[in-house]
Amino acid sequence: NLIRDIFVSAPGKAILHGEHAVVHGKVALAVSLNLRTYLRLKVTTTGKVCINLPNIDTFHCWDLSELRWLIHNFSAQRLDAELVKRLREFVGATNGNLDTCSMATLSFLYIYISFNSFLSELPSLTLTVWSELPTGAGLGSSAAYSVCLAAALLCTSGAIPVPLKEWDHTARWCQEDLELINSWAFQGEMIIHGNPSGVDNAVGTWVPRSTKVLVARVKDKINKFPSIMTPVLDSVDAVSCTCEKVLSEMTCEPITGEHYNILEELIDINQHHLNVMGVGHPALDMLCQVTLAKGLHSKLTGAGGGGCGITLLRPGALGQLEVPDGTVQDLRDCGFDCWETSIGGPGVQQHSPLSVKEEILEILNRD
Amino acid sequence: NLIRDIFVSAPGKAILHGEHAVVHGKVALAVSLNLRTYLRLKVTTTGKVCINLPNIDTFHCWDLSELRWLIHNFSAQRLDAELVKRLREFVGATNGNLDTCSMATLSFLYIYISFNSFLSELPSLTLTVWSELPTGAGLGSSAAYSVCLAAALLCTSGAIPVPLKEWDHTARWCQEDLELINSWAFQGEMIIHGNPSGVDNAVGTWVPRSTKVLVARVKDKINKFPSIMTPVLDSVDAVSCTCEKVLSEMTCEPITGEHYNILEELIDINQHHLNVMGVGHPALDMLCQVTLAKGLHSKLTGAGGGGCGITLLRPGALGQLEVPDGTVQDLRDCGFDCWETSIGGPGVQQHSPLSVKEEILEILNRD
Repeated sequence: NLIRDIFVSAPGKAILHGEHAVVHGKVALAVSLNLRTYLRLKVTTTGKVCINLPNIDTFHCWDLSELRWLIHNFSAQRLDAELVKRLREFVGATNGNLDTCSMATLSFLYIYISFNSFLSELPSLTLTVWSELPTGAGLGSSAAYSVCLAAALLCTSGAIPVPLKEWDHTARWCQEDLELINSWAFQGEMIIHGNPSGVDNAVGTWVPRSTKVLVARVKDKINKFPSIMTPVLDSVDAVSCTCEKVLSEMTCEPITGEHYNILEELIDINQHHLNVMGVGHPALDMLCQVTLAKGLHSKLTGAGGGGCGITLLRPGALGQLEVPDGTVQDLRDCGFDCWETSIGGPGVQQHSPLSVKEEILEILNRD
Repeated sequence: NLIRDIFVSAPGKAILHGEHAVVHGKVALAVSLNLRTYLRLKVTTTGKVCINLPNIDTFHCWDLSELRWLIHNFSAQRLDAELVKRLREFVGATNGNLDTCSMATLSFLYIYISFNSFLSELPSLTLTVWSELPTGAGLGSSAAYSVCLAAALLCTSGAIPVPLKEWDHTARWCQEDLELINSWAFQGEMIIHGNPSGVDNAVGTWVPRSTKVLVARVKDKINKFPSIMTPVLDSVDAVSCTCEKVLSEMTCEPITGEHYNILEELIDINQHHLNVMGVGHPALDMLCQVTLAKGLHSKLTGAGGGGCGITLLRPGALGQLEVPDGTVQDLRDCGFDCWETSIGGPGVQQHSPLSVKEEILEILNRD
């Protein structure tokens, strides 16, 4: 009944408003992006476990015998401190080594071993991941990776069914199964992050070290100026709620220019608030300036302190997104990379090979 | 017992924190500057009332007979709407004409007539004013002018005594007299401003039209996003209170670099808040950038929407203010005028001619 080969994908996420404020109990507004992470899991008979993460030049193969000693009796319902400690030593990710490659390896091994420790034999498999998302930019590449890992490993272990029917291109799981995927993805995130945001278990940011520093910086400012900073967090909270209200209006009313005007004002207000919270960066100020020169409004998204910003594009006369002439070139001239995307893509799903974009399928099948 | 000739001066003011928020009931922090407005009032026998305001190219002479018809029975304790209406017509400052020259003339005539209407004969006099303060920059040139007018006219009418003794260079009035000067200066301010800030009767800003528009802009934003803007005003309030606390610590404790660090942080926070309130301006953003490149922190002061900014200078090794090399030139290259000043100068005072700077005395004696 075990499946041999499975393709899954999960979307990246952007935090529109509320980054940082969320760790102080405020609302944050996160949306899925139409940029995705794809994973192929192939059950093999090689007696090896292999992971290929070509985005981050990470390739590992272990003999099952190497992994067996890591298994011991533990509760799979919560993060197991002893297992994490052993795994950190195993992958060489002890104190101070928190680089992306080690963390990706660590979270794979944690979920793989947690799922399979009760079996008499660990399964032999090869896992390949390719992502359209930039790493370390606060666009949820870490969460998308963890979600794909959890979905594929839960499927191959038989803990959740294979939803794809013969005639489907893509398929999603039922709510209960999605909750199980999500809770395991969150365990992966917990290993990696010093302070997962808690916005949503599926929303994580892959910013290995700096998130902790920046969260500490916000906390320091709150401790230093509580009477000044507490109302700023309240205002950020209201920005998130107002934005959510506008976005939901836009799904059920005719969309007007005024909707976009308000979204732009909210972006400007929150960008100032994030600077007040001490998580801004000169590069993000430059992003705001360069895009404002083209009439566009931007803010940082995610952890801040560099990282990634979002710029709102208005629809043109024909409904397509409109990028004013020269904007992308101006941004590239300042050293920025640009991704154009819409929000509201589907969550984690299983794919038939036919429904995976050809160039991505080629990468996933490369081994 | 009437005096024939009197020199008075009053300081300009800067709002360190709380501009705009103050009209919504929040604290603002205003300080006097060591930039002053000087006034000479000479009682004459020409049968004329003359005002010379060389800073703003305003020179008027009226025959007493021209002014007499403006007098009628009114309460001098509050702004008299009928007198103001007649004066507006007299100086041609009816609706829509709110330029600096007309407003300066109007407030002079209002105070002059209010003081002297109970006399059988209006006094013949010449009044000359020179200011070190820029006009229309939110540095209180209007308040300093009104304070000088009130002090000199109250003195010549005998309502308050002449404080200067033969051997004094400068002298100030007692608290009760200062309150009378202040309340009359406020009447002058009331004529000019659509919405006097109420921070302090002696603190006014001479920004004829734009103050009203910018105050309206803040109000519009509050009405549009109450849940977002109300906490911002609370935060601005806390910035003002924190700054006041730090400044008072600096008067009784040894001043440390940390005091200046906090003052700089407060400036940055409030500048962001003012942008959120919609009263920023690209020129002020540029001021912040140009000075930050020299390690200095700036914010707008007063009405905003252009106008004036303040930049904090730290004391150097010898206690003098330190302006990093090239700062003033960089600012001038961007089209800014620069004034270097300290805070905490004395309030309104009477001068002997000897205690007025020579170049200013020369201007005041020119007629």
